[in-house]
Amino acid sequence: MLKQQAVDRIFHALADPTRRALLERLSRSPASASDLVKRLDITLAAVVQHLQVLEESGIIRTEKVGRVRTCRLEPNGLRLAEQWIADRRTLWERRFDRLGDILDEEDLEPSTEKE
Amino acid sequence: MLKQQAVDRIFHALADPTRRALLERLSRSPASASDLVKRLDITLAAVVQHLQVLEESGIIRTEKVGRVRTCRLEPNGLRLAEQWIADRRTLWERRFDRLGDILDEEDLEPSTEKE
Repeated sequence: MLKQQAVDRIFHALADPTRRALLERLSRSPASASDLVKRLDITLAAVVQHLQVLEESGIIRTEKVGRVRTCRLEPNGLRLAEQWIADRRTLWERRFDRLGDILDEEDLEPSTEKE
Repeated sequence: MLKQQAVDRIFHALADPTRRALLERLSRSPASASDLVKRLDITLAAVVQHLQVLEESGIIRTEKVGRVRTCRLEPNGLRLAEQWIADRRTLWERRFDRLGDILDEEDLEPSTEKE
């Protein structure tokens, strides 16, 4: 999967408030789909569908042991989205740092002339 | 606006690939809607609509001088989403650190008994 596609899927997954609520729960400990149903007051079918989107985006992984499928967070999936946001923000902030440097240099120049 | 609502709006805004492309462009420098049209090969009406979503979510701010409206990135808007992701990831990673500590303690106990 291309990085661009991966970023698309992750941000699509994160856009849904129920999926973010599932991730909040899963960030505390792994859980089965039925554990998640109890906490979130939505149907099992809805939970299963949301979990599928989260798994396809690489934010969680699931493992079936016997009849129970356990879901756990996959930190690398979240890192890609975190990095995308941080890159945009730091690029913009660096621009301000450079502008600051240019203004500082301009401030210094007239005083050099005076000496 | 409640923090929860703010997070909802930001992730909704980030979910659209065209809006992310606009943010990538704006992270390099401020731009007018017509500058953004040239780069992205979409209609002015579509750009204006996307910019409105980005502005309402607090990720960009726009300023009109004369007939030109300039858009610029608002780093604090992005920080809220970055923080939400980082909080989930670190909570999960801390869980592993604690598990590691417990396992280390268990490793130490039998060797103490042997002495």
